[in-house]
Amino acid sequence: MPDANVLSFSGYSAVFNALSLAVAAMLAGTLFFFFSRTQVGFKYRPALLVSALVTAIACYHYFRIFNSWVEAHVVQPDKTFALTNITFNDAYRYMDWILTVPLLLVELVAVLGLPKEQSRGLLVKLAIAAFLMIALGYPGEVQTNMGLRTLWGTLSTIPFVYILYVLWNQLGASLETQPETVKPLVRGARLLTLASWGFYPLAYMIPLLGNSLPYEGKQVGIQVGYTIADIVAKVGLGVFIYFIAIAKTENDAKTGAAPFEPALAAA
Amino acid sequence: MPDANVLSFSGYSAVFNALSLAVAAMLAGTLFFFFSRTQVGFKYRPALLVSALVTAIACYHYFRIFNSWVEAHVVQPDKTFALTNITFNDAYRYMDWILTVPLLLVELVAVLGLPKEQSRGLLVKLAIAAFLMIALGYPGEVQTNMGLRTLWGTLSTIPFVYILYVLWNQLGASLETQPETVKPLVRGARLLTLASWGFYPLAYMIPLLGNSLPYEGKQVGIQVGYTIADIVAKVGLGVFIYFIAIAKTENDAKTGAAPFEPALAAA
Repeated sequence: MPDANVLSFSGYSAVFNALSLAVAAMLAGTLFFFFSRTQVGFKYRPALLVSALVTAIACYHYFRIFNSWVEAHVVQPDKTFALTNITFNDAYRYMDWILTVPLLLVELVAVLGLPKEQSRGLLVKLAIAAFLMIALGYPGEVQTNMGLRTLWGTLSTIPFVYILYVLWNQLGASLETQPETVKPLVRGARLLTLASWGFYPLAYMIPLLGNSLPYEGKQVGIQVGYTIADIVAKVGLGVFIYFIAIAKTENDAKTGAAPFEPALAAA
Repeated sequence: MPDANVLSFSGYSAVFNALSLAVAAMLAGTLFFFFSRTQVGFKYRPALLVSALVTAIACYHYFRIFNSWVEAHVVQPDKTFALTNITFNDAYRYMDWILTVPLLLVELVAVLGLPKEQSRGLLVKLAIAAFLMIALGYPGEVQTNMGLRTLWGTLSTIPFVYILYVLWNQLGASLETQPETVKPLVRGARLLTLASWGFYPLAYMIPLLGNSLPYEGKQVGIQVGYTIADIVAKVGLGVFIYFIAIAKTENDAKTGAAPFEPALAAA
């Protein structure tokens, strides 16, 4: 049944436009985080730089995914889209996540400006767990055997749950030392991370539903869903990081806790 | 009647050249807003940065729209242009607006430097309404059924009218606290926003005229019209934002209300 793998014009276009939107959003995010660094105090600038790296990496990958989507389909005389012999390369997403997910955790911890030992401990734990989560998910994603897909998916869930646990408990505990204006923002950033990350295991499980879901619904649901989750998790989190950095800079100015520019403080 | 969907050389070129002009105008706007930030006081720089993001996002989309226009047409032996089997993707405009329209409202409110609670309240209202306006317009734009087009268009008009109301009343009220040199500029920016935005519903309604307007007139009118409205609404508004920021910086220097650089103020 090769006909089953045909997309309607509107299904094809929904993915096409969502991928292009992601390129634009990641580009705008990169410019904003990169050039906003001088609006915040010296010690929060690395967090904004890392936010810019995350969206820059994602911008590159969405360019590639967009081109891969176009090359993988060919328009038919009736305006539907059939598959070409070039396979749509969804693995770009895993190449993206293996770099960006540890970096997302770095930016979240970095902006808090915790004592060095505390933030280093948190970062090592979270980055290793994030790496394991993506690396264990990948062999399952490229499986056609649904038993093996479930096995790798389950293994990948262990570091995922561990990250949630660390974010909730340890980040929660260190939250208590944050100034009052900062606390609700950090809570918001943590919630946004969990809500957007929660989407990925759901999309991962869609193929396990088998033929109970039509081809178009599956393809459009997975691609548009991953894309929206990526925009929220990367640009959305970055915007929270920016507002946290602004609030902490204002608090430092009030309390004299940290200079805006170290060079001027030394002068 | 496939012949009805043929553009004359001058009709095709009018759109082609307008789209290229938009790429150039958006690029120039991006560079100007971006590098003008150091000409204005610290607190007005985010407004200029957001202006640069808006034109950068639009520059990306006009590149895509230009390429889509070229791919969607093929020149005939008699120098007229017929449609290819690749559909011209007008949805790029909606992907652009969903990002840039909320940002345009952000830059307009940000440059006023209102007290935090006041500007946050205004922004949340305006950004949500802008998002709804675009999201409700899109399903109508891709409709061939004119009844449904009218329905979605009408729904989209509700948040549109709400934005006009908030800009006129609430922005008008906060205008009273602005210095005398700034007031006429803010009024001008508000008027320019409303005048350029007013064009979009007109272009949206053109297909409702049906066959009373020839294909070429409809296509060229919509594309050139949207393009001019976008240049005015994005680059034009950004220029107003720049002059408002300059006037407010000069006023702050006179009254000592805000430092040009926070680091220097602390030293």
